[in-house]
This record gives sequence, C-alpha cells and structure tokens, in this order.
Amino acid sequence: MTIHRIQIDRRFSDLDQLGHVNNVVYGDYIQEARIRVNRRVRAEGIEMPAQVVARQEIDYIRPLHLNPEPIVVEVWVASVGNSSYVQLQRIYDNDGTLAAKARTVVVAFDPIAEKSLPLPASFREYLLGSLEVVE
Amino acid sequence: MTIHRIQIDRRFSDLDQLGHVNNVVYGDYIQEARIRVNRRVRAEGIEMPAQVVARQEIDYIRPLHLNPEPIVVEVWVASVGNSSYVQLQRIYDNDGTLAAKARTVVVAFDPIAEKSLPLPASFREYLLGSLEVVE
Amino acid sequence: MTIHRIQIDRRFSDLDQLGHVNNVVYGDYIQEARIRVNRRVRAEGIEMPAQVVARQEIDYIRPLHLNPEPIVVEVWVASVGNSSYVQLQRIYDNDGTLAAKARTVVVAFDPIAEKSLPLPASFREYLLGSLEVVE
Amino acid sequence: MTIHRIQIDRRFSDLDQLGHVNNVVYGDYIQEARIRVNRRVRAEGIEMPAQVVARQEIDYIRPLHLNPEPIVVEVWVASVGNSSYVQLQRIYDNDGTLAAKARTVVVAFDPIAEKSLPLPASFREYLLGSLEVVE
Repeated sequence: MTIHRIQIDRRFSDLDQLGHVNNVVYGDYIQEARIRVNRRVRAEGIEMPAQVVARQEIDYIRPLHLNPEPIVVEVWVASVGNSSYVQLQRIYDNDGTLAAKARTVVVAFDPIAEKSLPLPASFREYLLGSLEVVE
Repeated sequence: MTIHRIQIDRRFSDLDQLGHVNNVVYGDYIQEARIRVNRRVRAEGIEMPAQVVARQEIDYIRPLHLNPEPIVVEVWVASVGNSSYVQLQRIYDNDGTLAAKARTVVVAFDPIAEKSLPLPASFREYLLGSLEVVE
Repeated sequence: MTIHRIQIDRRFSDLDQLGHVNNVVYGDYIQEARIRVNRRVRAEGIEMPAQVVARQEIDYIRPLHLNPEPIVVEVWVASVGNSSYVQLQRIYDNDGTLAAKARTVVVAFDPIAEKSLPLPASFREYLLGSLEVVE
Repeated sequence: MTIHRIQIDRRFSDLDQLGHVNNVVYGDYIQEARIRVNRRVRAEGIEMPAQVVARQEIDYIRPLHLNPEPIVVEVWVASVGNSSYVQLQRIYDNDGTLAAKARTVVVAFDPIAEKSLPLPASFREYLLGSLEVVE
C-alpha cells in the first residue's frame, strides 16, 4: 500500500497565454510522475515492461500559476489487470490546494510488435502489493 | 449540426523515445482543434469568451507515427450547459484509422476574476444550433 | 542550388505568456523544417545518416503571433564539410516579414557509438550540389 | 560579480526519438535558468522589465540523457548595453560534464508598444554590478 509523492518543478514554458499552466501540461506532469515512480520500482530490481497509456481522465479543479515551489503529484495503483493497471493521480499546488485529479489506464506494451503484453510476473506482484484504496 | 474537420501537421517534436506521438501531445492536438474551431466561430462575429478545460477523457486506440500527411481531428458539440459545453473529438491518422476518442468539458472563464462565467447568449445559441448526435 | 520553402502551422501551444511565439519555439520550427527537407532528400533515394545539431545561432528580428496562416522557413545549405554541413534558415511571417535568421551546424551522427560520422558519399554529393550562396 | 547556478530537472518529454534531450530543449533550459535568475533579482526589490531574446548562440558539446539528477545551468552577465545585456550560459550534466555553451542577447521590451525599452536604472545598475569575466 503505497502512495508515491512526486515533486515536479514548473517551467515558464508550461504557461499559456492566460498565464496558467496549460491544461495539456497537466498530462505531462502526470507522465513525469509515472516515469519517476517506475524508476523507483526498477531500482528495486523489478522487471519493467515498456508501457503506454490506453485511457486518461483528468478533472481540472484549480488553475496553477508559475511558482518557484514545485507541485506535488500523488500517484497510486487502484487496480491491476492482466496486461494493464489503473493509476490514480492527484496534483497539488505548493500550498496544498488540489489542482487536478486524474485516472490513467496503463498497458504493458511490446514496442517491436506494437501490441499489448501480459504484465511481467514480478511487476504484477509489485503492483498488487502496492494497491491503495483512497475513498 | 456541425462536425468540424481540422487537419493538424505532426511535428518531429511530437514524438517520444518510442517513436510514437507521445500521449500527452494528443491533448495538444485536441486543444489546437478547439482553438481553430473557435477561430471559425469568432470569424462569424459571434462573441467568444475565454475558455478553460474542466475535464478531459481520452481513449488511446492506435499509435500515431511521424508522417508528412496531417492527422484529422473531428470536433463537435455534444451538449450545452449554462456556463459550459461538452465537445467530443476523434483523432484520425491520415489513412483514416481512428487513433483516439476524447470528450472535453469546456467552461467559459473570466480571466481577471479567475472564475466561470455564463456562456454569452450568442455563443450559447451557436453551440445549441451546432449540436451533433453521433452514436 | 536549392532553397527549400517549408510551411509550418503555428499552434496555440507555441505562444508564451506575452502572447508571442516563444523564442525557444523558433528552434522547433527550424528543426521541423530540417526534418522535412531531409524527408524530401530521402524520398529521392539518397542515404541519410542520423544527424545532430552541433551549433545554432538565431537572430530574432520580429515577434510572431498566432495566425491561421503558416509561417515559411527558407532553408538552404551554405557549406559542406567532412562530417558536417551548415544550413541557413530564414523564418518569415505569413505577410512576408522576416521574423528570424538562423545558422545551424549539423553533424552526421552514429547513434550507437554516439559519435560523429563522415557524411555518406551520396548525401555529401547532394549537399554540394544544392549549395546556395545568398548574400 | 555573480555566477548563478540553476538546477533544472529533466523530464521524459525533453527526450526525442534518439533518446537524447532534444537540442531545442536546451533553449528551454536556458530560458528557465534566466527566468529563475530574474526571479531572484526581482526578490531583491529591483525593477524588472519584460524581456525578450534578440539573439542566441548555442554550442552543443555532449548529449544529455534522462537522469534523476538535475542538470546545472551556470548563468552570468557578460556585458550591459543601453536597452540590452548579454548573458552567458553553460549547461552541465549532473556528473559535471559540460554539455553546452550559450550566449544570449536579452532586450528590455515594452509588451504594449512591442518595442525595446531602455533598461530601468536599478536593473542596469544591478547588471553592471554583477558583471562576470570568464575566460
């Protein structure tokens, strides 16, 4: 049962003409958080397949502005299938305000054959062991 | 009843390390299609408020690769509320393959007060007149 | 003697908080133009190595704004070395205004060994044949 | 005499198809470093005009790869004019390897009139006081 908390620095180039972090960039923050979580898992010696996103839902709650303090992305696994898993994300501004909630379906992927793969056993076991229920 | 068809050229910088258009970039394609549709509407003299995305769902169906031919984003309005509307999008590869489906909730926004606004009457009327039911 | 003229559509996401195409994005336009020129050359059956940028200079002359009409990047080869060549670029707004001038040193690159390579003979011959002197 | 050292985290989205930080992204790192230096200066109560880049030169020396450790951008002022100044940058990989050298001409800018401005006196004084000679 693991909630990862990933800090990500904003960049000036994340802003759009309204002076907000553009909504598309939230997807980049979520991707970056997933990559960093996977890096941690791989560092524990767990076999990590290539992965692609099959579905993503984002609820935008509060705008984010440029700020020297990082945002925080909370990431946890909500369910595990045969070749996919569901990751939930919450993006917080540096003052703790909830800025967005997201749900991402991630699929293990064979980049040569360009098709989905069963999750490797050790990775699936890791995911099942880290399952988190957040109401 | 209007389905807009927006052509968008891919860029090399849309690709990630797997050689696919990165999943985050699909959000950029959808944003770009919305901006271009709004430009058409504004060109008809319809009052256009600032707009922000309140929710977005994307289903990723097939990967997109670099190709000199543009992708096509089909965009239409599925429902209209008081201060928001729902836009549906389909992203097609240049050979007609459906690459992604999306649903976006767009909210009229006051950039000074940073809060939602009622849709201006002429824009709301336009949206209602362009409603499209695609099964 | 060849000047390639490449049209590139602007995107909303190219803009920064000032409402200009951000200066970093000019580099993306130049890269995109080079990729498209190389695609043309490859389509003529000429062997094309992987290439990296060794040096780039950009003079920013006039700001670019969002506009439905594409910018135009003129691209030509100014000199050819053993493993590198110099490409010059001019970026024009859709009304013909010169927005930027650039000079890029491009090096043939072995992505496995991560070091420079001699230009393949047929590509070098092509580059020499396309040399352009623009005062 | 001040050399600012700015740490910037890499993102997965900084990589291109070759698995390198794309050369265009170096421009983003340099911009981000400048923004952060300016934030420090503004925090000292010094009047800061809007600024645009008039010229930039980048020498690419070594490729950067994805790494959990940040890059370091060293930034200093090399000369000061009436409405512009020259900033030099060096980008280092986390192991201290020099990855790129850059020189950027920055101009004070009136975003309403869209033309250059004299540097405000207090900012010009600050720039002159921070001049750095690095051979």
